Amino acid sequence: MERRAVILEAAAREFERVGFAATTIAAVAREAGVSQGALHFHFPTKLSLALGVIDEQNVRTFDVVSHHDASPAEALVRASRGIAGMLLTDPVVSAGIRLSLERGEFGAATAAFYDQWIGGISDLFRLAIASGELRTDLTPEQLGATVVPMFTGVQLVSAVRTGRQDLFPAVATMWRMVLTAVAEPRHRPRLLGVVADAFGTAD
Amino acid sequence: MERRAVILEAAAREFERVGFAATTIAAVAREAGVSQGALHFHFPTKLSLALGVIDEQNVRTFDVVSHHDASPAEALVRASRGIAGMLLTDPVVSAGIRLSLERGEFGAATAAFYDQWIGGISDLFRLAIASGELRTDLTPEQLGATVVPMFTGVQLVSAVRTGRQDLFPAVATMWRMVLTAVAEPRHRPRLLGVVADAFGTAD
Repeated sequence: MERRAVILEAAAREFERVGFAATTIAAVAREAGVSQGALHFHFPTKLSLALGVIDEQNVRTFDVVSHHDASPAEALVRASRGIAGMLLTDPVVSAGIRLSLERGEFGAATAAFYDQWIGGISDLFRLAIASGELRTDLTPEQLGATVVPMFTGVQLVSAVRTGRQDLFPAVATMWRMVLTAVAEPRHRPRLLGVVADAFGTAD
Repeated sequence: MERRAVILEAAAREFERVGFAATTIAAVAREAGVSQGALHFHFPTKLSLALGVIDEQNVRTFDVVSHHDASPAEALVRASRGIAGMLLTDPVVSAGIRLSLERGEFGAATAAFYDQWIGGISDLFRLAIASGELRTDLTPEQLGATVVPMFTGVQLVSAVRTGRQDLFPAVATMWRMVLTAVAEPRHRPRLLGVVADAFGTAD
C-alpha cells in the first residue's frame, strides 16, 4: 500500500475509535508507522485528514453502485448490501460515514456528500419507475431523499445497539418495508426475493 | 428555572454546538452563569453532564408519546411530529439525541436509550395492528426496530443537509412510505391525512 493510503487507513481507525475531536495527529502517525513530518506532507491538518477519509469512502462506496443492471430496483438493493458489507470490514468506509455525520467544520463537505448520494440513488429510483418495477406517487427525488437517510439511520442505530451485528437483517427489514410501499405488485415477490438473497434472510 | 436545569440547558447548547469531545466544563459553567464549583456539585464529570442531558431529553420526548389515543397509528405519527418540533426548538432534545449517537463512553447508555424507544414504539405498532389500522407481515418488534432508526436517520441527514429546515416534509415523506407499506387499505387515506395535517404538507 502506498504511504498516503496507509495514513488514511490509520486515520480512519482512529476517527472510528474516538471521533474527530479526540483524534490527534500524533496518534495517527504512530498508528500508520510514519513520522509526523511525513504525515504532514500528505495531510497538513487534521481536517484535511478527515476530508481525505470522507473522499476515499465516497470513492469506495460509489463503486458498488451499478447503473447497468437489468433491474434498477435490484441494483439499489445490491448497492445497499455492498455498502453494508463494507461498513463491517472497511474502516475507511465506517469512519468516513461516521465523519460525514459530524457537523461544524465538516458542514459543507458533508452536506455535499449527502446531496451526491441522494442524487445518485434518486437516479436509480427514476430508472426503476421507468422500467415499471416500481409504482408510487412519490417522486424519484422524494424516494432518494428518504431512503438514503433511512439507510443512514438503520446502520447507525445498528452500530450503537449491537456494534452492527444485526446490520444485515436490519437493512433487509428496511427494504421489505420500502419495497412493499413502492414495488409494482407484479414485481414485488421477485424484489423481496432479491432482498432475502442479498442479506441472507428468510423472505 | 432551578440551577440544575440552567446547567443542563447550557451544557446542551455546548454539546450541540461543538460535540462531546470538544465541550469543556469551563465553557458550560460560563454559558450557565455559574461557578465551576457549583457546576461540579451537580455534575462531577463531563460524562455525568452528558448523561444528564440524555436523561432529560428522554423525559421530554417520552412525554409526547400518548398511549391513550383512539388511533394508535395516529399516536405514532403525532409523537414523531412532537419530537420533530422539539428538535427544532429545544436544545436539550437536539443535543440529547446527538449525544445518543456518539459511541465509546456512552455505549451502554445510548444502547439502552434506543432499546427503550424501540420497545415503546413497538408497543404502539402492536396496538395499531390489533386495532386493525395496520396490516403487515412484519412483526411489531420489526416495525419498531426499523421505524425508530429511520426517523433517526431522517432527522440527522436533515440536520446535516439543511440545518433541519426540511425536517417536517422529510419526516412526512418517511411516514407516507411507511404507511403505504403497512396501513390497512381502508385506513390508509385517513392516516395519510393525519400525516399531512401533522406536518403541514400537501397529502
